[in-house]
Amino acid sequence: MNNSFTFQLQARSGRGRAGVFQTPHGPLQTPIFAPVGTLATVKGIHPAQLTELGASLVLANTYHLYLRPSDTLIAEMGGLHKFMQWPGPMLTDSGGFQVFSLASSRKIDDEGVTFKSHIDGSMHRFTPEKSVQIQENLGADIIMAFDECATPYDRAYIEKAMERTHAWVVRCQQAKTRSDQALFGIVQGGIYSDLRKRSAEFIASLDLPGIAIGGLSVGETKAEMNQALEAVDPILPDDKPRYLMGVGMPQDLVNGVLRGVDIFDCVLPTRLARHNAAMTRTARLNLVNAMYTRDERPIEEGCTCSTCQHFTRAYIRHLVVCKEILGAILLSIHNLHILLQITRELRQAVLEDRLQAYADDFLSKVQPDQDPLVSEDRRD
Amino acid sequence: MNNSFTFQLQARSGRGRAGVFQTPHGPLQTPIFAPVGTLATVKGIHPAQLTELGASLVLANTYHLYLRPSDTLIAEMGGLHKFMQWPGPMLTDSGGFQVFSLASSRKIDDEGVTFKSHIDGSMHRFTPEKSVQIQENLGADIIMAFDECATPYDRAYIEKAMERTHAWVVRCQQAKTRSDQALFGIVQGGIYSDLRKRSAEFIASLDLPGIAIGGLSVGETKAEMNQALEAVDPILPDDKPRYLMGVGMPQDLVNGVLRGVDIFDCVLPTRLARHNAAMTRTARLNLVNAMYTRDERPIEEGCTCSTCQHFTRAYIRHLVVCKEILGAILLSIHNLHILLQITRELRQAVLEDRLQAYADDFLSKVQPDQDPLVSEDRRD
Repeated sequence: MNNSFTFQLQARSGRGRAGVFQTPHGPLQTPIFAPVGTLATVKGIHPAQLTELGASLVLANTYHLYLRPSDTLIAEMGGLHKFMQWPGPMLTDSGGFQVFSLASSRKIDDEGVTFKSHIDGSMHRFTPEKSVQIQENLGADIIMAFDECATPYDRAYIEKAMERTHAWVVRCQQAKTRSDQALFGIVQGGIYSDLRKRSAEFIASLDLPGIAIGGLSVGETKAEMNQALEAVDPILPDDKPRYLMGVGMPQDLVNGVLRGVDIFDCVLPTRLARHNAAMTRTARLNLVNAMYTRDERPIEEGCTCSTCQHFTRAYIRHLVVCKEILGAILLSIHNLHILLQITRELRQAVLEDRLQAYADDFLSKVQPDQDPLVSEDRRD
Repeated sequence: MNNSFTFQLQARSGRGRAGVFQTPHGPLQTPIFAPVGTLATVKGIHPAQLTELGASLVLANTYHLYLRPSDTLIAEMGGLHKFMQWPGPMLTDSGGFQVFSLASSRKIDDEGVTFKSHIDGSMHRFTPEKSVQIQENLGADIIMAFDECATPYDRAYIEKAMERTHAWVVRCQQAKTRSDQALFGIVQGGIYSDLRKRSAEFIASLDLPGIAIGGLSVGETKAEMNQALEAVDPILPDDKPRYLMGVGMPQDLVNGVLRGVDIFDCVLPTRLARHNAAMTRTARLNLVNAMYTRDERPIEEGCTCSTCQHFTRAYIRHLVVCKEILGAILLSIHNLHILLQITRELRQAVLEDRLQAYADDFLSKVQPDQDPLVSEDRRD
């Protein structure tokens, strides 16, 4: 019997959950944060460093890999795991988000989307079937249903996009041929709780091995994000992992787990690193700032990452001022560690049934003005 | 008694030498290749990866670090080893080469050189005393005498620059105050054997703990480089390490050890990596080339570096085509490994007295057209 894709809920603390999701490349101990390897590489990070960081799930982007080097090439090379030498579980998105956020000249119809490549302007067409086919070529453990992403405040468009997303997930289910991949459906509905509930009910009815919550962290407020999560939480089944897509600020992880989320991903830690910024639990540091010139402290006091164990802010500032690659590497290691460490702590807090106390303490220390540098552009 | 800076010759094979040079940060088992960490970082490489590669000596550039972040800041931060977290032996150059190759508006007199920073156009002055002072602030184990680098074919200028270099090394000796740093003098003289001999005799007479051979790999032919090495080899003392500056193509290492060289350094492995090129023992591969699109082989068959143990040419090509940082990282690891591995093999060949056979075999396989991409520009 194939044990893959079973989700075992180990503990609850309030609405928070700790569980284990089995995949063909090993178990995922949730809650987890998944680093994003857009083009089959987590930018600036060697796979050996990902292992050292304790990463488990790694993402890759279907849209990007379809364009370069192509899903068929990756299939020929033995699939994504082998190609990029990541031995653990992987997840690919459906390409939907990038078609709507990166590509131009989009024409959407009920069948699919025609779009222009952001690389060379060539024309392409994605359908639910095509997205599944590409993701089967890539070979990740978890694949995502093709969805239409709408802007957060246009109710009429959001409703239409949601209905289309519902029709498309059924087509993805039917198109799917590999038994060693789990297809997750995506709940849409923007900031409208009634739409979110309708979408959650529909997606839950399909009995897929996991359910994602999409269309958040795209411009809505934190309160609206929390509300959307609270709307779907009681509807989603307990025995399926829940994946909040594209969300990964430290306080988002805490707020998400408080509302039943198990899996997160975000380009933010590596993108911020390439923009000279360090994430801490409470604030964000721009390491180019002259105030760090002689600062002999690590990025974050008490942090156990290899960057903070060895290097001073003064050294990292020197590197980023000189545009040295190692600056982005050291910051990426730290930023990824912070998010991975917070999800490890959240898991422990759930297992010990003290999630609310952990969250209260964490959130009380967060400083305001923590908006992503470039929240709209998820090109990474 | 301080054992530092003693050089023990362990074996000879022809003119080739194997030895151990003691430094305050550990022994150097020669022959060795030293990776270059221009701005207190070997570009693209984490210090932990340098350790994994088996690097022993690491270089840094006085000119670059004087300008950014400044030698006084590094001194405040506890010196170069602590600042960049390299626990092993380090060497700083004198700044002479960069003043002559990078800075503009140079005015040279017998006292020193006035020049304009290539960063912000500000005016600065280096003298032998100033170079030593900066290098004492930086705190490397081996420091270099301030020298004047001349173009290889202008005999009158080369002779004048050589005489000035001789006067300056004496001033460096007098200016030096730290006993935990070894000052190496530099033999100049361009391609002229009689000048090289005169320079070697003068530098050898100073009884410094090590002797460098400078002004090579700056445009002269391989035959001229070999001739210059052969001219000085019988003059230089047996009990001092010999450092051939700025030289590091695979065949140069072999040719150098055949002619009595113990230490090499070069920016080539990391610079080539950032230009998508892999070094092998026999040739150079440009990984952007479409012929590697589906090439499942490692960069070099049989190579034991972590890049070749894990990654295919097809994957590395994908990375460099997409300008992913990991491409430069994987290529830098491989290129550094090749040079470090060749010096390890050369050492073993000397210890087993089979250097000539090793060299004949090695050199017979090297393909022509191995010139550096950008041999003039050593900005790194």
